[in-house]
Amino acid sequence: MKINCDMGESFGIWSLGCDEDIMPYLDMANIACGMHASDPSVMTKTVKMAKQYKVSIGAHPGYADLQGFGRRYIPMKSSDLTALFIYQVGALQAICQSENTTLDYVKPHGALYNVMMKDDSVFTALLKGIKNYNARLPLVVMAVPDFANYQDLAASYGVELWFEAFVDRAYDDNGRLKPRSEPDAMHASIEKVEKQALQLIEQGSLTTATGQIIPVHADTLCIHGDSPLALPTAKLLHDRVARP
Amino acid sequence: MKINCDMGESFGIWSLGCDEDIMPYLDMANIACGMHASDPSVMTKTVKMAKQYKVSIGAHPGYADLQGFGRRYIPMKSSDLTALFIYQVGALQAICQSENTTLDYVKPHGALYNVMMKDDSVFTALLKGIKNYNARLPLVVMAVPDFANYQDLAASYGVELWFEAFVDRAYDDNGRLKPRSEPDAMHASIEKVEKQALQLIEQGSLTTATGQIIPVHADTLCIHGDSPLALPTAKLLHDRVARP
Amino acid sequence: MKINCDMGESFGIWSLGCDEDIMPYLDMANIACGMHASDPSVMTKTVKMAKQYKVSIGAHPGYADLQGFGRRYIPMKSSDLTALFIYQVGALQAICQSENTTLDYVKPHGALYNVMMKDDSVFTALLKGIKNYNARLPLVVMAVPDFANYQDLAASYGVELWFEAFVDRAYDDNGRLKPRSEPDAMHASIEKVEKQALQLIEQGSLTTATGQIIPVHADTLCIHGDSPLALPTAKLLHDRVARP
Amino acid sequence: MKINCDMGESFGIWSLGCDEDIMPYLDMANIACGMHASDPSVMTKTVKMAKQYKVSIGAHPGYADLQGFGRRYIPMKSSDLTALFIYQVGALQAICQSENTTLDYVKPHGALYNVMMKDDSVFTALLKGIKNYNARLPLVVMAVPDFANYQDLAASYGVELWFEAFVDRAYDDNGRLKPRSEPDAMHASIEKVEKQALQLIEQGSLTTATGQIIPVHADTLCIHGDSPLALPTAKLLHDRVARP
Repeated sequence: MKINCDMGESFGIWSLGCDEDIMPYLDMANIACGMHASDPSVMTKTVKMAKQYKVSIGAHPGYADLQGFGRRYIPMKSSDLTALFIYQVGALQAICQSENTTLDYVKPHGALYNVMMKDDSVFTALLKGIKNYNARLPLVVMAVPDFANYQDLAASYGVELWFEAFVDRAYDDNGRLKPRSEPDAMHASIEKVEKQALQLIEQGSLTTATGQIIPVHADTLCIHGDSPLALPTAKLLHDRVARP
Repeated sequence: MKINCDMGESFGIWSLGCDEDIMPYLDMANIACGMHASDPSVMTKTVKMAKQYKVSIGAHPGYADLQGFGRRYIPMKSSDLTALFIYQVGALQAICQSENTTLDYVKPHGALYNVMMKDDSVFTALLKGIKNYNARLPLVVMAVPDFANYQDLAASYGVELWFEAFVDRAYDDNGRLKPRSEPDAMHASIEKVEKQALQLIEQGSLTTATGQIIPVHADTLCIHGDSPLALPTAKLLHDRVARP
Repeated sequence: MKINCDMGESFGIWSLGCDEDIMPYLDMANIACGMHASDPSVMTKTVKMAKQYKVSIGAHPGYADLQGFGRRYIPMKSSDLTALFIYQVGALQAICQSENTTLDYVKPHGALYNVMMKDDSVFTALLKGIKNYNARLPLVVMAVPDFANYQDLAASYGVELWFEAFVDRAYDDNGRLKPRSEPDAMHASIEKVEKQALQLIEQGSLTTATGQIIPVHADTLCIHGDSPLALPTAKLLHDRVARP
Repeated sequence: MKINCDMGESFGIWSLGCDEDIMPYLDMANIACGMHASDPSVMTKTVKMAKQYKVSIGAHPGYADLQGFGRRYIPMKSSDLTALFIYQVGALQAICQSENTTLDYVKPHGALYNVMMKDDSVFTALLKGIKNYNARLPLVVMAVPDFANYQDLAASYGVELWFEAFVDRAYDDNGRLKPRSEPDAMHASIEKVEKQALQLIEQGSLTTATGQIIPVHADTLCIHGDSPLALPTAKLLHDRVARP
């Protein structure tokens, strides 16, 4: 079970997150690609840091929307989205190559991630991009009860999926995240986070906000770097589960 | 002797140049990478078009300045410039790879090209970028009388240079282009363009604006796509010199 | 009955439309404000041109989306949208003031215009912006059969509406434009345009794509500057109806 | 003697400065206008905050360069610079007007400020902008020994200048700031800041880095909001000098 976290979300003079504190505890760093956050200098710095701590590097592409931090859905033609996606993955790949390291996977960001899980045409635009660019790059998607639908579609493009679950967020009974706009969408205590993490790891299940237990098979656990619990969660997971 | 021209300089709804007319007559297409012009969709379309006409593809990175079309010098730290440069080359490389074709060379755009020829620290930032990313990518620079200085520096980074001359621009006695702000900086007649092209090809020399003849050894001739003579020049060079 | 047209949609090196040809035939120029098109220099040039031809100047604000030309809906909180809207109107107003002329009205652009007609919360965000900034600026909206709903809402903010109809577009039976994606959405002949214009002016009605006649009371007629019929339409309307 | 500080330099999700802490101690808030920092929502929030604390509002326009935070000089034609400048001032003015408050002055930001002090053509482009837009807006410039040159030029455009001195920076013997790249360019102790402030206020002079005393007549003192001493300096100046 691996721990992933969004990294490299600073931009120009503006700093975001506490990458240097969290990086040592991660297995996978999802690195922003300059469209919703980051810039080529921040990307380079973040790739170097991931390499230093032997953390696996993933491209974290998003909609081209700095002001909205990629959290706003922007409607696009499929072919335009594929191009935007590959542009970003390729830019990060080149920075990895320049730093003598490798790009290991892709995880879409924000609205692009959410829409990918809801709209097959968007999911397909991304799968097509990976297939054409480099079919050996796994795509990280959300671990959901109906995961087989996603897996079938991905298989038809020859793309491997890695499923991720969230340890610091509340789920609804369909196995989807409760929207941030609702109260209790984010877990407020490290105990709740730990409990959810252990249940995911040991039992392959989640307890939803209404108390239902649903099966969720995750390959990786996501920490939200912008939460105050991010660093303690990273340490906790690192100690308990990640690297035996 | 190969013919190169800047291609793919449209952006969003805005069209620039007459790529579809000129592409069939080129050997090398310098394709903008989304920072001073173009976007991922235009890049994809342009790569497809180059592939269709079997035209060699070069990355044409520039300063991040859409409004100024990359024609304004933006001071940057060397490491920031290297990162910006590799970001763009890598993005285009990824689009080439997705279209099952290859990226063959790099030619900087506008102010970045001009500054590279004047400031060794900028030239070095680009050489370092190529060396670290992919030392087999040749870098296109201006064919100047003092070319050996550039070649020595490039060799120390293991980077091959391709020298280009301009068939539609007037030169000063130092073998540099007369600035566009001066009258007669652009040749106004196709006859003048043809004469300059033939002299470059057959005699390896140029006649400057003052009438001096200077030696210029060029690997490739550049056409400016935004000139009204661009298309007739492309046809002329294609017929006379490019593909025997 | 006044003729309006979108003007000043160039950006940096990229040119769009044939403003200099059409401007002399207009009554109202909707001038882009730098977020979906244009830049401060283009805005200044366009304001000067409108002033020269004694054409009334309107702010034409849109979503901040150059690559999508403001044609993509971007979800925003109401207060953020009001701020974005006033920012653009104010920027153009300042340029008008610097050129010793006045800003006379506001017409939203593209997706912002379309969403305003569909979503009361968006319409209200714009009305609130105008009320707080300068309640004497009329807002141009689409002349629709159910216009009274819009007028009532606008009146509650003390904002005057100007209703516009389109002479070069086909309408559905609800008095809405047929989407550009459908065939025959744009009229292909100047005769069709003329007929629709005259019916709007003389009878205050439209014939829809299915042949129904619906009442439409317009204060102004819009020409699409990017249509090949734009210039002949401008001339036709100018001669027949606009300035007796 | 008034205290001014740059405010409203956040952008989208990215926060910068501690505006809410410092605002209560200021007399003048220089508010960024969306080109080098800020966005319409941040501008609105900052204007509201300044109004709440009865702090005078100034437009703080800069080069259009988010990634470089307006700290990089971008060469522009004078007329383009005037347009860019007025665009920003007008956008902030509109937000002030919408919040029922007034825009009181203009202070250029970063590279634009530095270049204005060095290059008369840039200074003139700004003076021309103010004259044409609203000649009653004072322009904040640096208090230098040769201030009369600036005053004469400004007077020829009918523009009032306000001179500012820096309490937290070291000066050279020409009365210019030592570049940030040099050691000791920023004062490290609050005692040093206090001493410089009191000398400016009580004696109208400065002690330069080499120990020379030079006369400097300032209308306002600037605090750098990004310094760790910003808040204590603001409090100190507020108590000692600003509001008797």
